[in-house]
Amino acid sequence: MKGIVVFSGSAHPGFADEVCANLGTERSGVKISRFSNDCLQAQLLVNCRQRDVYIVQPLVPPTQEHLMELLLMIDAARGASARQITAVMPHYAYARSDKKDASRISLGGRLVADLLSTAGVDRVLTMALHAPQVHGFFSVPVDHLTAMGVIANHYRGKDLSNHVVVSPDLGNAKQATLLARLLNLPVAAGSKQRLADDRVVIDSIVGDVAGKKAIVLDDEIATGGSIMEIVNRLGDFGCDEVSVACTHGLFTGKAVQKLTSSDRIREVVSTNTVPAPPDFPGLKQLSVAGLFAEAIDRIHTGRSVSKLFNGVDPAYAPPPPTPPGLF
Amino acid sequence: MKGIVVFSGSAHPGFADEVCANLGTERSGVKISRFSNDCLQAQLLVNCRQRDVYIVQPLVPPTQEHLMELLLMIDAARGASARQITAVMPHYAYARSDKKDASRISLGGRLVADLLSTAGVDRVLTMALHAPQVHGFFSVPVDHLTAMGVIANHYRGKDLSNHVVVSPDLGNAKQATLLARLLNLPVAAGSKQRLADDRVVIDSIVGDVAGKKAIVLDDEIATGGSIMEIVNRLGDFGCDEVSVACTHGLFTGKAVQKLTSSDRIREVVSTNTVPAPPDFPGLKQLSVAGLFAEAIDRIHTGRSVSKLFNGVDPAYAPPPPTPPGLF
Amino acid sequence: MKGIVVFSGSAHPGFADEVCANLGTERSGVKISRFSNDCLQAQLLVNCRQRDVYIVQPLVPPTQEHLMELLLMIDAARGASARQITAVMPHYAYARSDKKDASRISLGGRLVADLLSTAGVDRVLTMALHAPQVHGFFSVPVDHLTAMGVIANHYRGKDLSNHVVVSPDLGNAKQATLLARLLNLPVAAGSKQRLADDRVVIDSIVGDVAGKKAIVLDDEIATGGSIMEIVNRLGDFGCDEVSVACTHGLFTGKAVQKLTSSDRIREVVSTNTVPAPPDFPGLKQLSVAGLFAEAIDRIHTGRSVSKLFNGVDPAYAPPPPTPPGLF
Amino acid sequence: MKGIVVFSGSAHPGFADEVCANLGTERSGVKISRFSNDCLQAQLLVNCRQRDVYIVQPLVPPTQEHLMELLLMIDAARGASARQITAVMPHYAYARSDKKDASRISLGGRLVADLLSTAGVDRVLTMALHAPQVHGFFSVPVDHLTAMGVIANHYRGKDLSNHVVVSPDLGNAKQATLLARLLNLPVAAGSKQRLADDRVVIDSIVGDVAGKKAIVLDDEIATGGSIMEIVNRLGDFGCDEVSVACTHGLFTGKAVQKLTSSDRIREVVSTNTVPAPPDFPGLKQLSVAGLFAEAIDRIHTGRSVSKLFNGVDPAYAPPPPTPPGLF
Amino acid sequence: MKGIVVFSGSAHPGFADEVCANLGTERSGVKISRFSNDCLQAQLLVNCRQRDVYIVQPLVPPTQEHLMELLLMIDAARGASARQITAVMPHYAYARSDKKDASRISLGGRLVADLLSTAGVDRVLTMALHAPQVHGFFSVPVDHLTAMGVIANHYRGKDLSNHVVVSPDLGNAKQATLLARLLNLPVAAGSKQRLADDRVVIDSIVGDVAGKKAIVLDDEIATGGSIMEIVNRLGDFGCDEVSVACTHGLFTGKAVQKLTSSDRIREVVSTNTVPAPPDFPGLKQLSVAGLFAEAIDRIHTGRSVSKLFNGVDPAYAPPPPTPPGLF
Amino acid sequence: MKGIVVFSGSAHPGFADEVCANLGTERSGVKISRFSNDCLQAQLLVNCRQRDVYIVQPLVPPTQEHLMELLLMIDAARGASARQITAVMPHYAYARSDKKDASRISLGGRLVADLLSTAGVDRVLTMALHAPQVHGFFSVPVDHLTAMGVIANHYRGKDLSNHVVVSPDLGNAKQATLLARLLNLPVAAGSKQRLADDRVVIDSIVGDVAGKKAIVLDDEIATGGSIMEIVNRLGDFGCDEVSVACTHGLFTGKAVQKLTSSDRIREVVSTNTVPAPPDFPGLKQLSVAGLFAEAIDRIHTGRSVSKLFNGVDPAYAPPPPTPPGLF
Repeated sequence: MKGIVVFSGSAHPGFADEVCANLGTERSGVKISRFSNDCLQAQLLVNCRQRDVYIVQPLVPPTQEHLMELLLMIDAARGASARQITAVMPHYAYARSDKKDASRISLGGRLVADLLSTAGVDRVLTMALHAPQVHGFFSVPVDHLTAMGVIANHYRGKDLSNHVVVSPDLGNAKQATLLARLLNLPVAAGSKQRLADDRVVIDSIVGDVAGKKAIVLDDEIATGGSIMEIVNRLGDFGCDEVSVACTHGLFTGKAVQKLTSSDRIREVVSTNTVPAPPDFPGLKQLSVAGLFAEAIDRIHTGRSVSKLFNGVDPAYAPPPPTPPGLF
Repeated sequence: MKGIVVFSGSAHPGFADEVCANLGTERSGVKISRFSNDCLQAQLLVNCRQRDVYIVQPLVPPTQEHLMELLLMIDAARGASARQITAVMPHYAYARSDKKDASRISLGGRLVADLLSTAGVDRVLTMALHAPQVHGFFSVPVDHLTAMGVIANHYRGKDLSNHVVVSPDLGNAKQATLLARLLNLPVAAGSKQRLADDRVVIDSIVGDVAGKKAIVLDDEIATGGSIMEIVNRLGDFGCDEVSVACTHGLFTGKAVQKLTSSDRIREVVSTNTVPAPPDFPGLKQLSVAGLFAEAIDRIHTGRSVSKLFNGVDPAYAPPPPTPPGLF
Repeated sequence: MKGIVVFSGSAHPGFADEVCANLGTERSGVKISRFSNDCLQAQLLVNCRQRDVYIVQPLVPPTQEHLMELLLMIDAARGASARQITAVMPHYAYARSDKKDASRISLGGRLVADLLSTAGVDRVLTMALHAPQVHGFFSVPVDHLTAMGVIANHYRGKDLSNHVVVSPDLGNAKQATLLARLLNLPVAAGSKQRLADDRVVIDSIVGDVAGKKAIVLDDEIATGGSIMEIVNRLGDFGCDEVSVACTHGLFTGKAVQKLTSSDRIREVVSTNTVPAPPDFPGLKQLSVAGLFAEAIDRIHTGRSVSKLFNGVDPAYAPPPPTPPGLF
Repeated sequence: MKGIVVFSGSAHPGFADEVCANLGTERSGVKISRFSNDCLQAQLLVNCRQRDVYIVQPLVPPTQEHLMELLLMIDAARGASARQITAVMPHYAYARSDKKDASRISLGGRLVADLLSTAGVDRVLTMALHAPQVHGFFSVPVDHLTAMGVIANHYRGKDLSNHVVVSPDLGNAKQATLLARLLNLPVAAGSKQRLADDRVVIDSIVGDVAGKKAIVLDDEIATGGSIMEIVNRLGDFGCDEVSVACTHGLFTGKAVQKLTSSDRIREVVSTNTVPAPPDFPGLKQLSVAGLFAEAIDRIHTGRSVSKLFNGVDPAYAPPPPTPPGLF
Repeated sequence: MKGIVVFSGSAHPGFADEVCANLGTERSGVKISRFSNDCLQAQLLVNCRQRDVYIVQPLVPPTQEHLMELLLMIDAARGASARQITAVMPHYAYARSDKKDASRISLGGRLVADLLSTAGVDRVLTMALHAPQVHGFFSVPVDHLTAMGVIANHYRGKDLSNHVVVSPDLGNAKQATLLARLLNLPVAAGSKQRLADDRVVIDSIVGDVAGKKAIVLDDEIATGGSIMEIVNRLGDFGCDEVSVACTHGLFTGKAVQKLTSSDRIREVVSTNTVPAPPDFPGLKQLSVAGLFAEAIDRIHTGRSVSKLFNGVDPAYAPPPPTPPGLF
Repeated sequence: MKGIVVFSGSAHPGFADEVCANLGTERSGVKISRFSNDCLQAQLLVNCRQRDVYIVQPLVPPTQEHLMELLLMIDAARGASARQITAVMPHYAYARSDKKDASRISLGGRLVADLLSTAGVDRVLTMALHAPQVHGFFSVPVDHLTAMGVIANHYRGKDLSNHVVVSPDLGNAKQATLLARLLNLPVAAGSKQRLADDRVVIDSIVGDVAGKKAIVLDDEIATGGSIMEIVNRLGDFGCDEVSVACTHGLFTGKAVQKLTSSDRIREVVSTNTVPAPPDFPGLKQLSVAGLFAEAIDRIHTGRSVSKLFNGVDPAYAPPPPTPPGLF
């Protein structure tokens, strides 16, 4: 791909490689050094003067390290006279911090967006922000992809009779509704109630789930607490076979153990926006690298990125199945 | 109130007067002129050098006129060496435009926040933003009040037996949940589904409503379409007596006609963040001017504003009932 | 015209169409929506990623609506990764608010220039700013066209014997002087005196007008008050036949009635920077769309715009008559 | 004056001293050093942490040196944690560069305003800007004083019978009109015509001057060319006795020689916004230091500065005669 | 201390406590939370509206975590309407990254300074920046303290006969020169030569050290490599008794082991800008908390901070010995 | 060179011509005017719309005049829609002001970098900054060249037996070390000690110089004081034959007289970053115009500038000798 330079921090080089393979280009080298006082330094090993630079780095644990790497790489690219710098963050973890739900609290989702601008980013390419409003935290253009098409493709062709798509939280049920529409399935949702600061309980299920098979969908799975809650409650309501799906599969803490030890969970599906945990061989990881590569190609050549999502709600829209070789 | 100067644009001077009465100060004059080419000009008629300036202007129709008035008043205050300028927007209407749900669409909620900063605002005081994330669109500090306490007070002391709080949209049920908790009532919600671009249908009700009396709560009522939809659907499910409540009662288009012609609607309650429509004598308008005055007083004297909401979720928290005369 | 995308708000789509016709391109669609709470939203219907975007919108009444449309379209174009955004404002009405002639007054001309920058504009293309200093209110490059050449062309070839060019205000006589030079005519001017805030009287005429025919020239005609004043005063001094010309013909209020009912006014000439009033069939509207198209073409292809005005004062310079087919 | 610190660059320390005397404070020291490579450095010799700092420096020749001194002093004050920095520029010479009257020309009036903001200025206090629009070049508040009151006081009490106030340029006649009103005199103006780039000729006089005595008023006198032109033309029209007055008396080049060798010029009056030339003993220099001191006092204590000009056009308004001892 | 609020991140709360004790105030609480996806969130537990906020956080390992904590606390304080926010960074570790000594390398020292501004910091209070030029990386005022006085006090009163102050690097010998002057001792320096990217060798000693006792001074000790190099080389030149001193004693990697196993090192002295390592009981840690408290007090009360260093080079100046109880 | 436009201020047009000759392009005209009040104005005489503009102007005396010229030319280029503006400053004199070594002092090196950004510069191309940290004062990309290769070439091929490279200041010995390595010579340095504010004395020489011939190297020679000091001290230590070399040869004050009257100084070598003094025929001025032209060519065509310095420390790296015709 002429005129494009793709760099990757240490967060997820495999994803960057896969994107590059799709673009028909090679990942360019970066040297991340650590001073003896623990400060980081980034050196881009390839000329990027007047080039379109893409820096791939999802904000996955250790999140602060990876964020600082990203900021330093952007700073280095700007100082090296890059023409345009796009931060490719398949997972923008700080989107979780999107509202002031307590006094004198930081608003990390907005702050980190501003830090990226300060470092010199010109555009952000990301996927499945925790809330669609987070888009508005950025002062640079954001190309906001969705994994719903890729996830729907996973289920298409399988026997989906008697299935229902379930959102763990009825306050964030839009993605589940969308997936249900793509798969022509009904939708249900758990009704979360925060009992106390340290405890969330799902006390009811909205929609008919008894005797059905569930596709439970969430945007991010970290410790898996919410997922286990809804799975258990689905069991209470007579739904004993569950496929768990998410865009961002972090699986931190005891998530793998929880998810693999449940009798009700038939499979766990995620995309590769974050690296797969080493100890989760059963995870079905779907690649969205092709989607990111397509977006980069369209950004670079000035074609519409939203065209990837023709006719569907672009905030969460899936790319419709396209004939092979069309792109 | 020493050192405070309160101005008002033409959007809602009555509210500004009520705030001033609570503060024990007088509203200062503004002269809004219109050039013969329809451009606006604002002149502040009172010295505000090194003063704390508060400019009261909800963004109500004609919204663009009122927004421009506000920007010009801020510009005039900054040019007049005000020490600190707070835009008091009881209703920040542009919060409705909070996400990119179509290609190449404007994001008015963020844009207007940035315009206010450009004009020179130092702080925003507002109430019941359409989504809590909109807080993060502003680059200046935002003091974000809630009307839930005032609305709860309206219902307290009445016979609430067999009542349920109902949210028209299960995706925005947090305020209803909060009000329900304050009133010790159960909660239910309509399940909205967007059938086409021009049509929204509520196809089910989550929660038990049959034979109950409903308090339907929304943040903003404009044309009243969503409210009538949920009221009608509640009727289908056996709930025939409804009290409608909202923070921002715009009642545009045929809203008054719709709301007053329904047999099921017993009363309509709103706050005075926007002026009452002239043709709606039955509207029960609750004043939040005291709450704004208290916030301004605390801002000016450097006391905590969140202290107004002790112990409750501050994003949507109601001020707890306070002994008379405390404020 | 390859790589150019031209959008228009609702202020003057006919002008945009004429510009597009001159450029040999088509106007691209914009969808302006109005929320039920009166907030506006703009959606650009054509891909503009990495394109040179031109948004045509004179600030004509309802000015605030049109300004907000413009800001939202710029915001949408920026969010859609336009390479460069030019606001094409044939009439920048807020230039009228160019000085602080009262205490604590807003300075709309500078404020709106800053708002446009905040929204994301990269360049402004405009015509006949009320004062040349307004150019300096913008922090982005401004290409500032003049209609003097087009207006001069209107008079060339006619019998101009015994004519004089008259400026209503001797403080803004530069354009009249320029037109006079182009037509090889003498110049005269009214001497305005502001008697009170609400009343301006022209008490004398500078220059010889007795028995002559006048071409009265102003930059903007709104209610026509100043024009009628100078026409009447010209009559007092023995000049009874007047051709009225202006760049920006708004004709608000009773302007049309005033201008058409005067015996002394032979004709009224304006350009099409603003839409013609529906009830003024006698108006001779000269098109400057070709001039704007030529400027856009030169901007897009990196040729000099000032070359359009070879050898004449560029602040107000007319394009000299050029041989057909030269451009 | 408590909490105020006044510094002066090398442009006009005597004026700063006079301002300080009026304020009852002492001028604080600044050490301006010159590196051997001709770079300048400023050191403030008095603590200004959390103080209101006023830096007095008119932009007089050598203008670039004095501008750089001013920028460095502002930078030093900001770095030293000053609470608020006001640039006191009795003469803002770059206001002359206020429009783009040629292709690809710099706009010094706006640029220097931006440079001052970059250095860290919070407010500008100045007098008699070349055009009132220049006010809008600044992004910080500007307190814009006028010398008209002081100049009017000079003429009051003298025999003004048969006098006329004359503006050299009918395009900038507002100040002359104002002075005429204050002195209850008629007004006249020269009609300038720019014949070529290097030659300006006044070819007519607007208003009745024959047999009268003229008070010729300009904002700035540099080489005196325009003044001599109008004086000579006044002579042609039968006006042979002239008092020349201006706010900013630079008297560069051969100005002193020209003005003193004319038989028609009875006296030359200026204020002390710029230092008096050493070789012009006959110059009547009126002090505006008291006016600046009063403005600084009002800025510091948060009283209205425009109150200095009650009831008159604030852009050019003179302070009305006040009872002795009031200030 | 009225009106001051002091917060601390998790980097060095003990230091913050000591500063507070000196100020006679209490440290206010901060709640640092970690989302399950490893993102951080800061909540200030005490009202800071219109307060002077000081946030104490040296950038010590894990540096990225502590930097992000600091940025989030600043963001929270700004959002909570703090009047003024000072980042108190006793050790600004990113100063190490102060030049572009390789192609396309990041410049962390400047980037982090800009990030702090973006988060909303108003001032920085720090000590012993790696190079004095780093001061200029900040766009906010920096109060830059030195530990030289405290370190000199440690040696005063001891037998310093036959001692020499030694800088490991002759390119950064200014601090050693200053300490030598304070102690009235001669100075020497190692001449470093970078042989290859991974190896630095000190090949000579400038100045007379044979048979003397050395005080080796560096600004920061991390792994101790440079210190051991100079100590060994001193031994080669006949200097076998060394006291090692530094401002920032990080002692990372095997530093403690190296320093304690050398026969030549008599003692190791550092200040408490960073926490003492747990396994280094022999370390003599000198407190600079009093110096920081004094600076905060002076900042808050608007007194000169440089007055702390009367008469000595302020970039590296030691506070002169002061009579007990003066501060 | 297509698409490149090179302008020059009045500081060093000869250098700009030489750069243009190397680029195979012609220098474009600029008209610098001086208002009668001493304000400057710049007009670019060639179209630069959408062009890469390079403005050549070293900051040489009169430095303030040349700086203002540069700022005005940048402002004009930005206003004329240049695509990209590079300030080519072969000598950035304000780098001397790089630290706060006294209380309340200006930091000119950072301030001027910020002023350039405000005027609209997009990139800086410069040589031999006084300290490498000054790079970090700029918020735009800096391409930082070195003259070491050109200077080394001057000495190559001569008899260098028994020679030593000497740095006047052991605190800034890196360039001398680099030159020594390029010439395969030993290095020595003077040990400066600031005795008082007005007096610097070199009291010792580090390294062996007795009986040797010295190449004394400094970055800038202004009055020549430091150079004469080290030359005299070298004489004291038995080194009587000196070649003096520097990058920036200003030779202000009595520098020429001092340097030419010394018996020990065999030759004086500088580059042409600044104009040669008229009265110094013996000066051997080496041209770096080819190096600047090569850098401009690489910037314009998007090739690596650091590639010019393969394998050597880029901060001070010399271009290695390259086979003829390679560039």
